[in-house]
Amino acid sequence: MELQEILQKIKPLDEMCLKKAQERLDRLAIPRGSLGRLMDLGKQYAAARRNLMPKISKRKIFTFAADHGVVEEGVSAFPSEVTRQMVFNFVRGGAGINVLARHVDAEVTVVDIGVDYDFSDMDGLKIRKIARGTKNMVKEPAMTRDEALNAMEVGIEMAKEAAQYGVDIIGTGDMGIGNTTPSSAIIAVFSGLPASEVTSRGTGISDESMKIKIETIEKALLLHRPAKDDPLDVLSKVGGLEIAGIAGLIIGAAAERIPVVIDGFISTAGAVVAYEMKHAICDYLFASHLSVEKGHRVMLELMELKPLLDLNMRLGEGTGAALGISLVEAGVKILTEVLTFDEAGVTEGECM
Amino acid sequence: MELQEILQKIKPLDEMCLKKAQERLDRLAIPRGSLGRLMDLGKQYAAARRNLMPKISKRKIFTFAADHGVVEEGVSAFPSEVTRQMVFNFVRGGAGINVLARHVDAEVTVVDIGVDYDFSDMDGLKIRKIARGTKNMVKEPAMTRDEALNAMEVGIEMAKEAAQYGVDIIGTGDMGIGNTTPSSAIIAVFSGLPASEVTSRGTGISDESMKIKIETIEKALLLHRPAKDDPLDVLSKVGGLEIAGIAGLIIGAAAERIPVVIDGFISTAGAVVAYEMKHAICDYLFASHLSVEKGHRVMLELMELKPLLDLNMRLGEGTGAALGISLVEAGVKILTEVLTFDEAGVTEGECM
Repeated sequence: MELQEILQKIKPLDEMCLKKAQERLDRLAIPRGSLGRLMDLGKQYAAARRNLMPKISKRKIFTFAADHGVVEEGVSAFPSEVTRQMVFNFVRGGAGINVLARHVDAEVTVVDIGVDYDFSDMDGLKIRKIARGTKNMVKEPAMTRDEALNAMEVGIEMAKEAAQYGVDIIGTGDMGIGNTTPSSAIIAVFSGLPASEVTSRGTGISDESMKIKIETIEKALLLHRPAKDDPLDVLSKVGGLEIAGIAGLIIGAAAERIPVVIDGFISTAGAVVAYEMKHAICDYLFASHLSVEKGHRVMLELMELKPLLDLNMRLGEGTGAALGISLVEAGVKILTEVLTFDEAGVTEGECM
Repeated sequence: MELQEILQKIKPLDEMCLKKAQERLDRLAIPRGSLGRLMDLGKQYAAARRNLMPKISKRKIFTFAADHGVVEEGVSAFPSEVTRQMVFNFVRGGAGINVLARHVDAEVTVVDIGVDYDFSDMDGLKIRKIARGTKNMVKEPAMTRDEALNAMEVGIEMAKEAAQYGVDIIGTGDMGIGNTTPSSAIIAVFSGLPASEVTSRGTGISDESMKIKIETIEKALLLHRPAKDDPLDVLSKVGGLEIAGIAGLIIGAAAERIPVVIDGFISTAGAVVAYEMKHAICDYLFASHLSVEKGHRVMLELMELKPLLDLNMRLGEGTGAALGISLVEAGVKILTEVLTFDEAGVTEGECM
């Protein structure tokens, strides 16, 4: 299916569903609204699923991995080979995302969408390589327009497979040494803010590397002048393959009405690209946490999303999404499992 | 055992344990510190347990229920009978705390420490009634000094039983129509702030009831002049039986080196009483969330505790503690299950 067709399938949440969910929440045997945002999570999830008594049984986190040509500029504290090493660590189950996914009973699927390494078949890894990493955006566009589109289609394919497999909630994740640089570049374009205001230290670079990172983004933006009103142009010129995959995953999931919990800075860059293609996408998104990366707040504000957690995290991989999935599920259970005043035989208060 | 003896058993966390846990965290195959506060949770938990590779298998939430004489002043939106009705709801498994405790695989034990109703034996309910509710603090002390002490001893007993049962982490919870009033009174005393600055709308009272609530607290404080440097005096004069139980539970748990996740406003009032008896208690506490009740922030700042969540919750029962338990457990798993750079075969970064 064409991207445009899929985008057209995405509709804003149904007002009637939201109203009915709110009515049930108002009848729960608790002071009205006293579980705060947890109740909103349940309501949004129910409306996204068009099911007033939804149940989350299958949780899946997709961690897209890719390399970045821009790393040769010296923008990262880690060498590119760490991307492939971490993919092995994911498949082995020893990384942060594996631990937190197990904690919330989510399955992790790693998608090689652009790692500069040839993996053999391994359980838990899908090989959907579009290229062996992006090109160095300071010298040429990170991707061709076709590559960016193909990478988005990988994400859409993952969402479709998840729907067929009966997944009830999706988390996004990323692995790619150097990928805070394209993420900052993307939000610089869409927010109109200077690179210095949306760039932080990624995995933990020195003052000197930080200066290089900002200059690198400025140079790339000056060279390519990505068109703000053409998200695919922005994505292909200064984005990343994993970011494109995440954007596609989000679009595909929203089209299938599967709510998505987005992770931190890199995942949210993917979400912003999807949002710029279709604003209604936000109705299907939950922002798991606020990253230490200062551009993250700018992205979330652009989409009017409010993060659930603020724990100084900045790992990526989908770690924040895992924790967020558990909170959204808690909200769903509040909606569906807490008894109403009638059911519980509890006297209502004066302000009910 | 005497309260003083138990308080003396509580020691600050061992510096060597904290150091060793930090050393492992620094070797994990992630950019240093990139899981933020989650890593601190694991470290604090490990040091509290004096075990560098701890495992959380049994989680227990104690929800203390009691009535409040002060309700006759018109300080609550709900009538006192709701306390007993909610106890039935807890035992039946249909309340917010049941739903969230199941979500994080925690067991709920409801403790009738002062409900104005005679329950028969029920699974999941412990009857340890000290009195059929407190007295109206505007007219006389809420409890005698002995009642307050006995209620604390109930909490200590619960902690001791939990330790014998092999509980690895404890959550606190409360149920008691009217109990935001004594909680505000307690923090007014310990913070020295006027009642109006530490009092909110509880379950959702009207402007008029709000005025009455503040005046009621002011009147009680003026009548009894609780001695700030004698926490048991404060607790007995303007406290509550469930608040005393929670204070005792926290003290007993810290003495047994079982970390405690405190819920919202009422639970934290109990924690403040315990803290005023022994400052080192904080080392064993995790603050689950920031309540809508404005006095809660004052309490947490007094103890220098930082809440994990801020979701506009104000239900109590232990609902915030349930979510907090899951986050602390996530932190413990990061410490113990994520592979180190060596174990994972990942190249370290330049800033490691």
